[in-house]
Amino acid sequence: MERIVLAYSGGLETSAAIPWLRDACGAEVITVTVDLGQGGELEEVRDRALAAGAVRAHVLDLREELARACIVPALKAGAMLDAGAPLALALGRPLVARALLTITGIERATAVAHGSSGRGPHPGALDTAIRGLNPALRIVAPAREWAMTRQEIFDYASRRHIPVPALSSPFSVAGNLWGRSITSADLDDSWTQPPDELYVLTKPPAERPSEAACVEISFERGVPAAINGVAMPLLDLISSLTTIAGAHGVGRLDLVERRPSGRESRIVHEAPAAVVLHAAHADLEAFVTIAEVERFSRIVSQQYAELIASGLWYSPLRTALDAFVDRVQERVTGVVRLELFQGGCRIVGRKSPHAGCGDTAPTQPVVVGA
Amino acid sequence: MERIVLAYSGGLETSAAIPWLRDACGAEVITVTVDLGQGGELEEVRDRALAAGAVRAHVLDLREELARACIVPALKAGAMLDAGAPLALALGRPLVARALLTITGIERATAVAHGSSGRGPHPGALDTAIRGLNPALRIVAPAREWAMTRQEIFDYASRRHIPVPALSSPFSVAGNLWGRSITSADLDDSWTQPPDELYVLTKPPAERPSEAACVEISFERGVPAAINGVAMPLLDLISSLTTIAGAHGVGRLDLVERRPSGRESRIVHEAPAAVVLHAAHADLEAFVTIAEVERFSRIVSQQYAELIASGLWYSPLRTALDAFVDRVQERVTGVVRLELFQGGCRIVGRKSPHAGCGDTAPTQPVVVGA
Amino acid sequence: MERIVLAYSGGLETSAAIPWLRDACGAEVITVTVDLGQGGELEEVRDRALAAGAVRAHVLDLREELARACIVPALKAGAMLDAGAPLALALGRPLVARALLTITGIERATAVAHGSSGRGPHPGALDTAIRGLNPALRIVAPAREWAMTRQEIFDYASRRHIPVPALSSPFSVAGNLWGRSITSADLDDSWTQPPDELYVLTKPPAERPSEAACVEISFERGVPAAINGVAMPLLDLISSLTTIAGAHGVGRLDLVERRPSGRESRIVHEAPAAVVLHAAHADLEAFVTIAEVERFSRIVSQQYAELIASGLWYSPLRTALDAFVDRVQERVTGVVRLELFQGGCRIVGRKSPHAGCGDTAPTQPVVVGA
Amino acid sequence: MERIVLAYSGGLETSAAIPWLRDACGAEVITVTVDLGQGGELEEVRDRALAAGAVRAHVLDLREELARACIVPALKAGAMLDAGAPLALALGRPLVARALLTITGIERATAVAHGSSGRGPHPGALDTAIRGLNPALRIVAPAREWAMTRQEIFDYASRRHIPVPALSSPFSVAGNLWGRSITSADLDDSWTQPPDELYVLTKPPAERPSEAACVEISFERGVPAAINGVAMPLLDLISSLTTIAGAHGVGRLDLVERRPSGRESRIVHEAPAAVVLHAAHADLEAFVTIAEVERFSRIVSQQYAELIASGLWYSPLRTALDAFVDRVQERVTGVVRLELFQGGCRIVGRKSPHAGCGDTAPTQPVVVGA
Repeated sequence: MERIVLAYSGGLETSAAIPWLRDACGAEVITVTVDLGQGGELEEVRDRALAAGAVRAHVLDLREELARACIVPALKAGAMLDAGAPLALALGRPLVARALLTITGIERATAVAHGSSGRGPHPGALDTAIRGLNPALRIVAPAREWAMTRQEIFDYASRRHIPVPALSSPFSVAGNLWGRSITSADLDDSWTQPPDELYVLTKPPAERPSEAACVEISFERGVPAAINGVAMPLLDLISSLTTIAGAHGVGRLDLVERRPSGRESRIVHEAPAAVVLHAAHADLEAFVTIAEVERFSRIVSQQYAELIASGLWYSPLRTALDAFVDRVQERVTGVVRLELFQGGCRIVGRKSPHAGCGDTAPTQPVVVGA
Repeated sequence: MERIVLAYSGGLETSAAIPWLRDACGAEVITVTVDLGQGGELEEVRDRALAAGAVRAHVLDLREELARACIVPALKAGAMLDAGAPLALALGRPLVARALLTITGIERATAVAHGSSGRGPHPGALDTAIRGLNPALRIVAPAREWAMTRQEIFDYASRRHIPVPALSSPFSVAGNLWGRSITSADLDDSWTQPPDELYVLTKPPAERPSEAACVEISFERGVPAAINGVAMPLLDLISSLTTIAGAHGVGRLDLVERRPSGRESRIVHEAPAAVVLHAAHADLEAFVTIAEVERFSRIVSQQYAELIASGLWYSPLRTALDAFVDRVQERVTGVVRLELFQGGCRIVGRKSPHAGCGDTAPTQPVVVGA
Repeated sequence: MERIVLAYSGGLETSAAIPWLRDACGAEVITVTVDLGQGGELEEVRDRALAAGAVRAHVLDLREELARACIVPALKAGAMLDAGAPLALALGRPLVARALLTITGIERATAVAHGSSGRGPHPGALDTAIRGLNPALRIVAPAREWAMTRQEIFDYASRRHIPVPALSSPFSVAGNLWGRSITSADLDDSWTQPPDELYVLTKPPAERPSEAACVEISFERGVPAAINGVAMPLLDLISSLTTIAGAHGVGRLDLVERRPSGRESRIVHEAPAAVVLHAAHADLEAFVTIAEVERFSRIVSQQYAELIASGLWYSPLRTALDAFVDRVQERVTGVVRLELFQGGCRIVGRKSPHAGCGDTAPTQPVVVGA
Repeated sequence: MERIVLAYSGGLETSAAIPWLRDACGAEVITVTVDLGQGGELEEVRDRALAAGAVRAHVLDLREELARACIVPALKAGAMLDAGAPLALALGRPLVARALLTITGIERATAVAHGSSGRGPHPGALDTAIRGLNPALRIVAPAREWAMTRQEIFDYASRRHIPVPALSSPFSVAGNLWGRSITSADLDDSWTQPPDELYVLTKPPAERPSEAACVEISFERGVPAAINGVAMPLLDLISSLTTIAGAHGVGRLDLVERRPSGRESRIVHEAPAAVVLHAAHADLEAFVTIAEVERFSRIVSQQYAELIASGLWYSPLRTALDAFVDRVQERVTGVVRLELFQGGCRIVGRKSPHAGCGDTAPTQPVVVGA
């Protein structure tokens, strides 16, 4: 019997996909759930997959890998959306793709599946990431083939006795340890502020401290290494900054993007650590590098962000851009001081061993030709 | 006797330039002082020019022209320095150049002169602007030819009995109605925050209101037209926003740029109206235009900023970029709501008649060829 | 009964699509064939559509529109593929999209269909063009839904008694009056030169004249207007240059592009008029505009080419880029002299009323503010 | 007595600069002449320096260094002027700057001098290169300070009994082993073809072979390594290609650039080896890399060319761009076959071990996080 490995989030679509894949493809379904710091009880997610008919349900903890192998390169590259929002979800996709391939190899499966619906700004990004790793593997995307509304999917799942979450919340939330994003038809009036209860990482104005907080972030060759002088692993550093900056309400973004069709898509982002780290890194980089490098680095940032969004992570374009970025980062060592207050994050000082002008001269010796 | 028209600010260098030009070039010196909203008593500046030996001293009020013909195009183009600082001084240079040429024509002078020293990031920008209007006109830049320190210039002026300001302040301040910038050797330690007394447009933290303010800015085809529903002329609108945003401490920027030589240059900017208007305009533009247009508009923004900084205002490059920008601005009509609080400025709503998707289709009728 | 309007080329895929659409969608099929100068007997194509079961078969002559509304803007923008190949096929797609919509309106159809298979570098370009005109219209692409090889499609058509061309030639040829392109599995060895018989517009080396030909092309605001001083309509001018340049073997290109999957795609282009006109236009533009404008114009060229290739013709991005380009073209008036010889095209002279430097100064009068 | 090291070409300006520097600066003048393959008898140049009053005259052979350290990186980066002309002169400037600094160190000199007049598209490029190596060193540019015409310089030199070349030729020629460029007031009529006698590396039409030549160029990681299968050192390879391509008249370029002032500058280039190598390299790179990499590589090419032209060779921008380029070059190994005929150079085949799609997948193993 054929085996399909399904990227499983525990939500409505991927839960309904389990019986659908079994019926439509005549295949055993094996699920993979990747822990990227999105929160929630992954043991329950695992149980739900088995209850929905999966023959096996894997859970992989790739949080450290997300931070080290995806978030840090994007931070060093200054890769953000044009309006200044960090890319969180999109940075997790390459790891979902790799997890699918790893389990496919272990389980000797013949196809992979995922719940991406083909809507949204980059509908094919996960497919592109999968093909970047294995151009030949068959990909099945049930949500693109069935033509069901969310209510119809819910009814389908109910008929199949699949345990799925109730359709109560009008908000669609996704995220990982680098940030959350919320979309909803209820947000469509761009004139109205999103309700405070959407935010879970950042405090509402009334609960924020009445005094500004100062935080010092140390970087080593572009990589965040310490907070207030205390060195810590990346996951701890991000988690710690999420708490500190979130307490002051830093990291909320309310963006509208418009598709070629003219349709607008409003996304509310919440990413305290990402906003603070991008601001600090950008300031330090500008402090230690010449203006000409900065100017081209911003062109690289834009290309890097497009690459992440479109799923081209596993491509020679990324490795070539990384080579540029890493050369620039050789000087990006130092400390940045930020003031966090009432939703704002302001740079108030920076220092670096590379601030002087001594080391801009070429390191190779001056050689006389003959 | 030859006549030279000197761009005169009333400061040390341009005051010393009056006798220097008379001696070195054997010329009558006629001064032009341009009112761009930099503040100060221009009548006194005029008297000082005459006291220093100018045969005539003109004062031109080009504030409305600065707003209409320079600031608005830069705002529509989203032209800012990479780190988000608006260009204020550089936007005034084209008008200084034009004033010099206008007076040169009236006075039948044979050369123009200015106090630019040839230091700073764009040492030749004013020359480039002048040449953009008249490639053949002779330009004299005394401060590039004499090799004097500020103290030596002061002594030279004293010996010539020229009334000049005392050398007391260590800070060099320049500005116009769009913003101020401050440089100083005293700011060289980038780890230390600039002293609060540097800022005159923005309140220090202790004096800011304890409640956020909401402000609604209306745009018509990219041009700011009203605040909180009250239509007002550009100069009033900028002045009003300077007051409102300044009260909340919005508009302070502390930037470091690095030259190819490795030398760093720290500039403190203060530009409340510019920061708020750029933020509001960018949000509205992203709201009404498709992502593909936004992406290319940011490339145009970067080129436009370089053009302003380098003095290429009077060039076919600007008129061609303006054509692109103006086409995009046809849809940038609407209202943006911002929250100003404790130095921060956050978009909390936007609306536009062009928000719907109906008008993306081409306006030309579908024609059948035969 | 539902009606579907099918873009019909007369080839195997679109011929097989007629019965397929009738069966799969239960719809009447109405075909549209657009004459873009691709050659062949369009009356025969029309008969074939009816023989295959179309209820009506329209043929629209959009050659003049292709030249005026698509080729000329691309020429003015300098929009070519990176390796210097002109975009021919892609420039015809917007007109195919518009023809589909025009006939859809006339026939009160509810969907459009086309033969694009979803392979190739820009599989969704025609869909994007259609959506740019009407985001809501249903699009059916039979070749993406059936999973048939060319041989299977042939067998299917034979079983349905559909008259289709024999599967003899291993080469897939497409084109219009701006150029032809040829792809084939037989071209996959990139080390081997394409066979001479692939080319129909350009003479093989042995048949080319032994003397170079000189040709002078006049442009008016970027639009080609005359050859050797003889003014002629665009279609005549392109046809005439195709003959002249083709006789000397000018306009052959042999390119390889590589997909993210790593798969290479070799395309042989033949476009004598396009190659000569792009070369002449680029030289004249550089001759009359300053280097700064040229540099940004090349960035615009690259974006314009991507826009054409990806189907974003009917988008605000094009109209905004056109505004930039048209401003630059105001000076692109003059004559370029080229030498055509043995496959090469070399600029040997250019003249223009805008060659002098007099008109770079701004045209607005210098105004004194007070 | 102070010592100044002068970059000495043996031409009129630098010859006149020797007595001028002695008089104006009261300094001993030491000359450095760098052999970059420009041709001519450098021993005679050395004698002329001494005859003009230099206390010592050094000649450094940096041809191999020019090829290896400057030409190859520019070739790998695809760095050309917009119109496709290779940068030859500008690639030699960094080595002139380094030679000046090397001799300055040996001779314990306190300043360097050069003959650059401050005209031309990048008047400060050599200064920028010198400052990139030593920001503090004093630079004297006599030709910018004296206000003499070429005739006046000639008369000045004659009065000082300095042996200088006669002012007979109206053409100003400069070059090195990578190419020659010719400027002249006699070329100002852009409608007229440059006279054939300007060209010394490329044969006139009448003397070219009547049969096309085929040449195969092998690259290893972007570096040209062999011609027709025969491996050879870079200098031999460039020299050999200059002969082969020059015989067929390949490598002539006739370009006009326009300054912001509106003044046009016509430059005739002759660079057979450079034109052929750039064409071959670009084709091979496109053959082995994906389209997304190619697109960004062209942005890098443009930035790299600007960097070379403006003298920013010794800057962190170049090393960062080199890191990008070198990563891309890892795949640029293979052979390109070109046809040279009657001034044209056409790619007719290419092959590479990296042509297949197997190696686009990431090389790191797929790791499971836990």
